[in-house]
Amino acid sequence: MKEKPLAVVLASGGMDSCVAAAVAAREYRLAFLHVCYGQRTEQRELRSFKAIADYYNSVERLVLSFDFLGKIGGSSLTDRSLSVPPGNLHRAEIPSTYVPFRNSLFLSAAVSWAEVLGASAVVVGAVEEDSSGYPDCRREFFVAFNRVISTGTKTGSRLRIETPVIDLSKEEIVTLGASLKVPFQLTWSCYQEEEMACGTCDSCMLRRKGFAGAGIPDGISYAEQTVSSKTT
Amino acid sequence: MKEKPLAVVLASGGMDSCVAAAVAAREYRLAFLHVCYGQRTEQRELRSFKAIADYYNSVERLVLSFDFLGKIGGSSLTDRSLSVPPGNLHRAEIPSTYVPFRNSLFLSAAVSWAEVLGASAVVVGAVEEDSSGYPDCRREFFVAFNRVISTGTKTGSRLRIETPVIDLSKEEIVTLGASLKVPFQLTWSCYQEEEMACGTCDSCMLRRKGFAGAGIPDGISYAEQTVSSKTT
Repeated sequence: MKEKPLAVVLASGGMDSCVAAAVAAREYRLAFLHVCYGQRTEQRELRSFKAIADYYNSVERLVLSFDFLGKIGGSSLTDRSLSVPPGNLHRAEIPSTYVPFRNSLFLSAAVSWAEVLGASAVVVGAVEEDSSGYPDCRREFFVAFNRVISTGTKTGSRLRIETPVIDLSKEEIVTLGASLKVPFQLTWSCYQEEEMACGTCDSCMLRRKGFAGAGIPDGISYAEQTVSSKTT
Repeated sequence: MKEKPLAVVLASGGMDSCVAAAVAAREYRLAFLHVCYGQRTEQRELRSFKAIADYYNSVERLVLSFDFLGKIGGSSLTDRSLSVPPGNLHRAEIPSTYVPFRNSLFLSAAVSWAEVLGASAVVVGAVEEDSSGYPDCRREFFVAFNRVISTGTKTGSRLRIETPVIDLSKEEIVTLGASLKVPFQLTWSCYQEEEMACGTCDSCMLRRKGFAGAGIPDGISYAEQTVSSKTT
């Protein structure tokens, strides 16, 4: 039997990249890549990453430190002097949690490692609609990035970025993940706490909205039990 | 008088980015960015970077550490168990000094910092022809990357990558630099030595070919005084 090709999964420890990994596992052997970047919940996300990589029997795994993002600054996720804004899924502007061009840095590292491993794909759990409006989560950004890979690597167009959940809502991601037996209880989404998810930041609100809409139990607990009316 | 706009210059300490900075200085105030990545000549390049940033009165400067490139591996510049190949400007394949997708990582960091600073351009000294055949030094790679910036940043198309020397030969770069009073004696090109340039690696050979062709003194010394016939 021919061995499956290899894919690098860029896994944050969150639910979207975990569902993306579950989709990719049907077609690829998986190498898991995680980036720590001095974000508030760095240790908690790393713990989730390891548990998810174990669950999917990763053939390779790599954890990189992008501490330099704190030196570049500009985001409340990496600058502790700024506070994470209260959750609001209806704001017009890009929130302060945006880390400038973060996905381009993460994708570049993933592509670099994929070239070294000889992988065929880089799998990313980016979501366009339910993503707080981050510009580097849009489909057109990934289309453009594939062109950068074709022109700027030794591998060329034999290596592609795949975004299996980009067009899905959080609710659809939960439903898809449940059908693929995704271990949601191992994933972490909260932007600001590491012991118990706050339940009120953008990321918690998006997650809760997804599980509530899908009618599926979340598997993790929240400090703030009531879902704000803004989330619905 | 209206203040000039700001540009981030990605400066290695080498001659190409120094000439690119000299071109950009006519139009922009300059913020200098340097990336250390565990390459063999890291300390020497950093010294040149600082001297060049001083020379051009940088309004901001930032040095980032990309040590993680050593963990990704795949290059004789970052993996000390591999040796830098002897210079050969006529080889068909991409040499082992290629660091997979390095320019995408460096550009992403430069764009991230440019967004935080509110800069209008990222200036890069990439050279297509005399570049050892690295895929991420081609014009089409930078064209594609500008599309990634348009789609993936808050700033959008108000921020562009500029590559003022990309179509020039090394000889033309030396001639242009001399006309702009570029301090070539402050720059460093050698891939493998930090005290005195070896004179025989690809990078030294390209540099020597450029100065010899332009008929202009180099300003630095080489351990190997004779230019190999391969360089002409």
